[in-house]
Amino acid sequence: MPYIRLPEVQVRRFCNDLFAGYGFSKSESETITDVLLTADLYGIESHGIQRLIRYHDGIRDGSILPFAKYEITHETRLSAVIDAHRGMGQVVARAAMELAIEKAKEHGFGAVVVNHSNHYGIAGYYASMAAAEDLVGMCFTNTEAIAIPTFGRNAMLGTNPISFSMPADPIPFLYDVATTVVPRGKLEVYTKNGKPMPLGWAVDANGLDCTDAGEVVGNIISKAGGGILPVGGSSEESGSHKGYGLGMVVEIATSIFAGGVTSNHVGHSGNGETSESFFALDYGMFGDKAEMKHNLSVLLQELRHSAKAKGQSRIYTHGEKELESKAEKLQNGIPVNQKTVAEMKMIGNSVGVNFERYFGAIWL
Amino acid sequence: MPYIRLPEVQVRRFCNDLFAGYGFSKSESETITDVLLTADLYGIESHGIQRLIRYHDGIRDGSILPFAKYEITHETRLSAVIDAHRGMGQVVARAAMELAIEKAKEHGFGAVVVNHSNHYGIAGYYASMAAAEDLVGMCFTNTEAIAIPTFGRNAMLGTNPISFSMPADPIPFLYDVATTVVPRGKLEVYTKNGKPMPLGWAVDANGLDCTDAGEVVGNIISKAGGGILPVGGSSEESGSHKGYGLGMVVEIATSIFAGGVTSNHVGHSGNGETSESFFALDYGMFGDKAEMKHNLSVLLQELRHSAKAKGQSRIYTHGEKELESKAEKLQNGIPVNQKTVAEMKMIGNSVGVNFERYFGAIWL
Repeated sequence: MPYIRLPEVQVRRFCNDLFAGYGFSKSESETITDVLLTADLYGIESHGIQRLIRYHDGIRDGSILPFAKYEITHETRLSAVIDAHRGMGQVVARAAMELAIEKAKEHGFGAVVVNHSNHYGIAGYYASMAAAEDLVGMCFTNTEAIAIPTFGRNAMLGTNPISFSMPADPIPFLYDVATTVVPRGKLEVYTKNGKPMPLGWAVDANGLDCTDAGEVVGNIISKAGGGILPVGGSSEESGSHKGYGLGMVVEIATSIFAGGVTSNHVGHSGNGETSESFFALDYGMFGDKAEMKHNLSVLLQELRHSAKAKGQSRIYTHGEKELESKAEKLQNGIPVNQKTVAEMKMIGNSVGVNFERYFGAIWL
Repeated sequence: MPYIRLPEVQVRRFCNDLFAGYGFSKSESETITDVLLTADLYGIESHGIQRLIRYHDGIRDGSILPFAKYEITHETRLSAVIDAHRGMGQVVARAAMELAIEKAKEHGFGAVVVNHSNHYGIAGYYASMAAAEDLVGMCFTNTEAIAIPTFGRNAMLGTNPISFSMPADPIPFLYDVATTVVPRGKLEVYTKNGKPMPLGWAVDANGLDCTDAGEVVGNIISKAGGGILPVGGSSEESGSHKGYGLGMVVEIATSIFAGGVTSNHVGHSGNGETSESFFALDYGMFGDKAEMKHNLSVLLQELRHSAKAKGQSRIYTHGEKELESKAEKLQNGIPVNQKTVAEMKMIGNSVGVNFERYFGAIWL
């Protein structure tokens, strides 16, 4: 399916107005839009505006409540627990990381966990918030179960991403990955494109290798069995138990810490039941920050300049691709799948935000 | 190469006396021995007494100083930095985790980083110390460079293991893995056994797939290029960048935080230059501990009872295999490779600890 380039400024305006149309405040709408567009600009299409349809459905079926007000239910000097009351993930997530940052600035460390939340976009957005304040940031979330434990056939854990960021020059180190081989969103993109997935990403309802993204996504939605493999694949020999265990670490740091619902009991698309966690650490607790930042910058540069494997021309450090993608897309526009464009039109119309008014007539 | 079973009690006595022979105090010797034997009992041969020869060589060549006294060089309420002064890794590591635990008990969180250290055995030993005190424990270390960054051909990062433990019933969750597909010790075992490695574990000096463990280990020692792949293998499609980035997170949390030497500059076998970090967190900062522990126990039980993939009969949770292995080996003895037995004899003789006095005559 072909892609159309849409100008970032117009997409931002459209999304802001769209979320305002659902009843979010101006500042809430801008937060949600910024998280989504950051994903698209970073080249992480799976977590960008192609998700609008899922948020739309969530708001329509009551699993996302636009008027929910999150609430701090437990707090210590270093920590807080927040009940999102089924609000929009991005809104509570931003507030939670702001609180963790505040605690880290005052006490050295801040840990804020959230329950009864919804999909919050890319985890890296929140880890980056801490790095922008010269702190180390870390952020996790659980999700609807989609990952197969090693030797299992049913999805028991979420894609359970990990993000981690630390400031460096010229750009921060930003790690943001699902603990599955791929995130669910990537399967959705393959489904939209109708292309077969690489072998080793997912298994069918019988726990056997499967390259049909649509079939796997369908099985996940209907809870028929099968799902995505943990990073490390399906065998211990290739490290499956490492990805499975990493998913468990995220599960503990989210649903268990937050007193929330574990991934295997989270309903379709999150359903106001996901848990998230936000950590900020003032690395000044270990000494001179400028020196540490310099040492990291040197290591990153050594990696970039390190010898390349035969046939390869570049070694990336984490966060580089994203910033290069952002620069390119700010100039040339955001590539949007035509199916997503159709969804934007439909969704926009439902809240009185006319697609053509922002983008002119686009023929599909 | 065949294995011999040696009784755990006698191996413990032998190792205690061996380390005393190098000049370690009684309590230091017991700590080092306990870490090593915990690995062997857990079935992690790569990190057990087969490493005695490397410690022996390190002490002989001056990279490990038995009489070194570690020193706290920086401290805040939540944190400390310790200079190990090239002492034995296990000794400073235990003290560092004890300090992190003390801080976590008093303030909720403790983070202790160590520089100028040496190989400290299995990371899980220290994470477990925190879990035994009803805390969440986490422990990392960097190592001599052995891991290939995605698209690279030279080793730039260590095996950089991650361990994480949280109490649960009937047994704790204990995650302890290298961020490479396999740890270096596993290559050493394959070298000793003379068996080819599975494809996808390592690359040769040209960055190409290689199944000859001896060749890869040799290249690593001579810094000829090549090394072990990050978990996720060699391509982005299988998640190589995820393992590479996870190794970077560990690198940041160890050498960068501790102001130590980054893995790509650590000398052969650690050489008194590795950095380690120890985190303890009182999860009571998020509410009722009994409830959280219960919820984790329920999830672990649900995983064990979850449907199995075709051809599989069991889903493990992390830490189960280790405790079952321990029970079996306490009863039947620790399986020791004959090459390791020969090394134990040689090493023992060098410090006046006669192997036969502990084990009788074993014919090789």
